Amino acid sequence: MKRTVIYPGSFDPVTLGHLQVIRRAAKMFDKVIVAVLINSSKTPTFSVDERMDLLRQVTADLENVEIAGFDGLLAEYARERGVNAIVKGLRAVSDFEYEFQMAIANKKLNPDLETIFITADSDLMYLSSSMVREIGSMGGDISNFVPECVHDKIVGRLRDKK
Amino acid sequence: MKRTVIYPGSFDPVTLGHLQVIRRAAKMFDKVIVAVLINSSKTPTFSVDERMDLLRQVTADLENVEIAGFDGLLAEYARERGVNAIVKGLRAVSDFEYEFQMAIANKKLNPDLETIFITADSDLMYLSSSMVREIGSMGGDISNFVPECVHDKIVGRLRDKK
Amino acid sequence: MKRTVIYPGSFDPVTLGHLQVIRRAAKMFDKVIVAVLINSSKTPTFSVDERMDLLRQVTADLENVEIAGFDGLLAEYARERGVNAIVKGLRAVSDFEYEFQMAIANKKLNPDLETIFITADSDLMYLSSSMVREIGSMGGDISNFVPECVHDKIVGRLRDKK
Amino acid sequence: MKRTVIYPGSFDPVTLGHLQVIRRAAKMFDKVIVAVLINSSKTPTFSVDERMDLLRQVTADLENVEIAGFDGLLAEYARERGVNAIVKGLRAVSDFEYEFQMAIANKKLNPDLETIFITADSDLMYLSSSMVREIGSMGGDISNFVPECVHDKIVGRLRDKK
Amino acid sequence: MKRTVIYPGSFDPVTLGHLQVIRRAAKMFDKVIVAVLINSSKTPTFSVDERMDLLRQVTADLENVEIAGFDGLLAEYARERGVNAIVKGLRAVSDFEYEFQMAIANKKLNPDLETIFITADSDLMYLSSSMVREIGSMGGDISNFVPECVHDKIVGRLRDKK
Amino acid sequence: MKRTVIYPGSFDPVTLGHLQVIRRAAKMFDKVIVAVLINSSKTPTFSVDERMDLLRQVTADLENVEIAGFDGLLAEYARERGVNAIVKGLRAVSDFEYEFQMAIANKKLNPDLETIFITADSDLMYLSSSMVREIGSMGGDISNFVPECVHDKIVGRLRDKK
Repeated sequence: MKRTVIYPGSFDPVTLGHLQVIRRAAKMFDKVIVAVLINSSKTPTFSVDERMDLLRQVTADLENVEIAGFDGLLAEYARERGVNAIVKGLRAVSDFEYEFQMAIANKKLNPDLETIFITADSDLMYLSSSMVREIGSMGGDISNFVPECVHDKIVGRLRDKK
Repeated sequence: MKRTVIYPGSFDPVTLGHLQVIRRAAKMFDKVIVAVLINSSKTPTFSVDERMDLLRQVTADLENVEIAGFDGLLAEYARERGVNAIVKGLRAVSDFEYEFQMAIANKKLNPDLETIFITADSDLMYLSSSMVREIGSMGGDISNFVPECVHDKIVGRLRDKK
Repeated sequence: MKRTVIYPGSFDPVTLGHLQVIRRAAKMFDKVIVAVLINSSKTPTFSVDERMDLLRQVTADLENVEIAGFDGLLAEYARERGVNAIVKGLRAVSDFEYEFQMAIANKKLNPDLETIFITADSDLMYLSSSMVREIGSMGGDISNFVPECVHDKIVGRLRDKK
Repeated sequence: MKRTVIYPGSFDPVTLGHLQVIRRAAKMFDKVIVAVLINSSKTPTFSVDERMDLLRQVTADLENVEIAGFDGLLAEYARERGVNAIVKGLRAVSDFEYEFQMAIANKKLNPDLETIFITADSDLMYLSSSMVREIGSMGGDISNFVPECVHDKIVGRLRDKK
Repeated sequence: MKRTVIYPGSFDPVTLGHLQVIRRAAKMFDKVIVAVLINSSKTPTFSVDERMDLLRQVTADLENVEIAGFDGLLAEYARERGVNAIVKGLRAVSDFEYEFQMAIANKKLNPDLETIFITADSDLMYLSSSMVREIGSMGGDISNFVPECVHDKIVGRLRDKK
Repeated sequence: MKRTVIYPGSFDPVTLGHLQVIRRAAKMFDKVIVAVLINSSKTPTFSVDERMDLLRQVTADLENVEIAGFDGLLAEYARERGVNAIVKGLRAVSDFEYEFQMAIANKKLNPDLETIFITADSDLMYLSSSMVREIGSMGGDISNFVPECVHDKIVGRLRDKK
């Protein structure tokens, strides 16, 4: 039996913490769909295309990872894709409470859908996209926070945005 | 590729919360080893044999679940069994912090070992073995807290113990 | 002596969690004033009239519940109404910290004013109005989250809003 | 209708935080039963009689407060006394999680039983009986932590115990 | 050796909690730079000049306190000023997680930079500038929340803003 | 003016996390007294002499660090030593609540006494002495958890103890 999981998120932009969760999930499951949320009501710093492009580059060596975009309800998207498990990265206590709330809601919307939690290593655990954007936009060094192969692209994009 | 996970714990005794985590893990992975900790320094209420026996009864319908006992380091036991992933049930914020500490320690002792977290449904989430023991030993009704098929055995055992 | 409490909130819209807190408070006190916050600086999804109307429908069977609107400081509103106790629903750890901060502030503004906390059942506990709005606006099924008698009104309103 | 609540605890010994919760409950309800847990398996520092005696002294001016002892399940004791609400004092985040777990268990054992939470003022909030015992037994000044009228008794008792 | 620390923040406006942290830091270190964040993307209620002016008044008696403004990265500002330690006030659990995340990021950006945490007394601990603004703008009494010598200025400013 | 701080603890045994807190404190203050708690009621794994000896070895290169033992109340010990500040290492949310409670109590016992909090790096943050003892006593590799120069001593001692 083939085990597929969805790892949803905004990835605005991808961080080293995201990448570690993807690698761990890719080791444990047969296929990982990294699903970028297309949220029409918010204005992201990186466009959906840019975010998917960055994700494709940093996961180029992982054969069982697919980058996709999705709109609407995650529970519905999982049903469409025939997937029964969502992977979420846990960072902190406050994360846990919110994620648990979402896991309950998703289970009510789609009773077959399980949520499993993975953590990144402790030094990556507290990393967030918003911190990367904030530090990068002020000219700070973000090389400890984002994958090396996309570092220049992210820095350039944050400089343009400013 | 066959995906095996270990779900370690004291299970003194098994609760409906444990059982739900086992069922969810059994759905997501090819094999689940429920590993009962043999802690020689603590005096459990149920003996290792009793605990394993209760677990075998409540998982009798799950073909891909094995009940085992283990002593010593979990990271070492996982290596011996050739398993790369541990499953833990998350109940509450304080749990999360302790489990995260253990996940980091296990990763340092065995770098290939991942820890994934699963939650039980919200009404089972806060359930603990110690609460079952406490309520049962005072003659309270524990039928909402333990699997039906082992209810009488647990009640009898807690009465004897008193 | 007649015991009256105020249960303040945005109720944008009312959820099954709110309703359970109202029912529990109505059982414990002689009168419950459900006070809808009229916050002129925020743009709610449901108007104050709509929110009060939904609340009146779901509490129609509770004789000791009054639905009211209030503007300005809660501590001042309680004084005007001659009420000495506020009821708040606790959902999660982060809630608790914020609510505790508000309880301290309210006590400083009105030393006679006590705050008591009630929780909803575990499966309703994590439910929030914002989650209902988000899921409803994407066409998700919210029948597990809102009272049955106002389900269609809320669904219709969220569809119009979109 | 007469509203009675039970405020259960070990009170080993009573602190200024306990006393404030009792006073607030006594203001909000018609009767408050302060119920001292008789736990035969633990060795308290103060005997049940001593603890009840201290509580009677510090609540002597409150006509609607009764001091009682109870053994066994709280949910059962509430049923025997015909009481439908338990009052608990909330001190910290970790308290909240444990208390919520107990509230769920008590509700399953006695569906009519509600739990409401009250907090002490911020400077008393973090106070605990174990801290009072620890500081007092090392000869520290506990006059900021326990009611004045029982201060000497508690100090004397902690000195004897040593 | 002279020990200088930076206490950064928005101080929009300064509260009694901020002032207590400043006083404690001034007692422990040779010099404290209170650094007001000039965040061009947010619209503060009080201008940078107003915020610095209020801080100067409430710290007038503290010889080793300097009020400064800074823009950009805190880690960079500390380097420019030749300072190796940041002081942060801890209010609550959620604060702690965010502050810990920032401390890790700052350490990666400037490995010599340490972060130390100080708490205000329990009755000031939960106080926040946003609560002061909210209560003040609704005409509530904020004399328990802000230093006496700037009370009238803050009240006047919040009234104008409305 | 000379700034001295006390860093109290059990240090049973010292970990890499403790050592990092000591180094950071030694950089920020003129003198650091590492004060080993002599708790006669508990049975430590390492004797007070062993614990102080290990601490002396790992801090041998730090001129401004003194290793001392103390009994009784910390607030009293600080007064005797003429010290006005305590340093504590923060590990997790639950730590923070307990430490905050102790800080309030110490402030009431000795109003001049401030408590400041320092964190270790994220990968050392969650490390505890009890985890070191547990893993070491089961023969696990603790070289990632304790200072290299005392590793063999600790391993030998834990083996003997078994």
